[in-house]
Amino acid sequence: MSEIDVLISEVGPRDGLQSVDAVMPIESKKAWIKAEAEAGVREIEVGSFVPPKLLPQMDGTGEVVEYAVGIEGLQVAALVPNFRGAQDAVAAGAHKISIPVSVSETHSLANLNKTHDQVIGEVEKIKALLDTLPEGERPHFEAGLSTAFGCTMEGPVSEDKVVELAFRLIEAGCAEVGLSDTTGYANPAQLKRLIRLVRAEVGNDRLTGVHLHNTRGLGLANAFAALEEGISTLDSSLGGLGGCPFAPGASGNIVTEDLVFMLEAMGLNTGIDIDKLLAVRSIVSDALPDEEIYGFTPDAGLPKGYQPGGWGIA
Amino acid sequence: MSEIDVLISEVGPRDGLQSVDAVMPIESKKAWIKAEAEAGVREIEVGSFVPPKLLPQMDGTGEVVEYAVGIEGLQVAALVPNFRGAQDAVAAGAHKISIPVSVSETHSLANLNKTHDQVIGEVEKIKALLDTLPEGERPHFEAGLSTAFGCTMEGPVSEDKVVELAFRLIEAGCAEVGLSDTTGYANPAQLKRLIRLVRAEVGNDRLTGVHLHNTRGLGLANAFAALEEGISTLDSSLGGLGGCPFAPGASGNIVTEDLVFMLEAMGLNTGIDIDKLLAVRSIVSDALPDEEIYGFTPDAGLPKGYQPGGWGIA
Repeated sequence: MSEIDVLISEVGPRDGLQSVDAVMPIESKKAWIKAEAEAGVREIEVGSFVPPKLLPQMDGTGEVVEYAVGIEGLQVAALVPNFRGAQDAVAAGAHKISIPVSVSETHSLANLNKTHDQVIGEVEKIKALLDTLPEGERPHFEAGLSTAFGCTMEGPVSEDKVVELAFRLIEAGCAEVGLSDTTGYANPAQLKRLIRLVRAEVGNDRLTGVHLHNTRGLGLANAFAALEEGISTLDSSLGGLGGCPFAPGASGNIVTEDLVFMLEAMGLNTGIDIDKLLAVRSIVSDALPDEEIYGFTPDAGLPKGYQPGGWGIA
Repeated sequence: MSEIDVLISEVGPRDGLQSVDAVMPIESKKAWIKAEAEAGVREIEVGSFVPPKLLPQMDGTGEVVEYAVGIEGLQVAALVPNFRGAQDAVAAGAHKISIPVSVSETHSLANLNKTHDQVIGEVEKIKALLDTLPEGERPHFEAGLSTAFGCTMEGPVSEDKVVELAFRLIEAGCAEVGLSDTTGYANPAQLKRLIRLVRAEVGNDRLTGVHLHNTRGLGLANAFAALEEGISTLDSSLGGLGGCPFAPGASGNIVTEDLVFMLEAMGLNTGIDIDKLLAVRSIVSDALPDEEIYGFTPDAGLPKGYQPGGWGIA
């Protein structure tokens, strides 16, 4: 496979599906993941290891992970809310596991029913589990700092607290932290500032990805700001499905199709074939006929004469 | 009035209204303009001096300009397609006149029925007219380089041609040129590159504004990129009304409300009170009940604990 400039991590099968009422059949999830991988998407967060009684949409994540790790060239990520989830993810063979940690403790209690100290405790247990595995089988372990840019419950969130929590998580054994704009509050200046602050504390290689929402229309502006700071992994969701069920008013990840268009038009290689990516939408809409899927580029179409690998370059 | 960091030029009464089928009554236009000025908007493009038989939505622009120049602190702009329009704009007392010049000659012929040479001829005639006026009554004269980032008819547009046309327009007597993404094709890298190229040719003070659309969802990313290059005037349209009737598929200026939110959240002063601005939407929707108006920030609401003048700054 060719070198890429930016890694797009598709989170629709996790963040998208967990926020819609309908439950997508497992066969449709597999078809979606396979088709996106074939379009060139190299990392997909395929599900979350949460109890099905809490999120029936995520039932069968183990089976989905086991299927997805068989797709060549695909990095398979899964969300784990705790040690128990991490055990399941390891058993299924996930390449990457992410634990969400809310910087807002109010949100952390509402979302995971845990204080920061309790989450750190889970991280330490997960790290100990991973250390028992042979090196080649050890998944990449990341913490996603949710509500890093503000919280629908607490309002503004202290940047000092973001930095401090990032440091504690790395110390507790995460290989990396990510910044998540769970609530769609972030702006480009804030994003640049916070990336710099966190990197100054933990090192550049410990923060390479951000998770952005488009709640207030700033998603791609924030993505561009993050790129300028050297961020190389961007989460997004096909058709803009997604959001946080515990953060009222926060809806919709940035749209993968629009993000790919922006990056490729800028001349940045994502490895993704946008025409093939656009064709994947029908799998999602056929499987979830009552859910709206979004996207400006899908609606407007590609520019006349558009070619991947840069636009307007004389 | 306090110093501002970024001038938002509201173009809804011109670019927005000219692209919708319904004709807004003149009294509603006046109410809209007055309310936006009271919300702190300092420049409004209030209409276009085109023959009413071509664009009935723009009938009565003279009366609207005469009304608007009576509003204290408001810079009143008008679009003029040619010398005849400029005469009318001058007679009505507009503070600023803008002539659109399509870099794509195909688009120029479709839109204004003129070649580049013919448009330059109009610019020279307008400049001669302005020179006959006393200095205090001379409107600021700008050319907007439309299709600067690509054309729905021609496809990619040569950057050399943009630069050359910018140079010719300044030479012909425009005080300034602007870059217009008429078709919603622009991306942040292209915007930065083209701003630099044009400024290198005509000087920084001859290019201070850009006109962006959100057709492919990149509008605010492009606005942020432009700001980083030192652009200080951004066009936008309340509720995202707008587009180009001659550029099929190109719909919707960037949304003023979302732009104000982004800038103010970044700590940049626009002089605009966002709550008052949001209240103006009802004037537009009451006057155009069949038209959809857009906006992420209006839909999602402001962040909890939001205060103007920066967000998330520790």
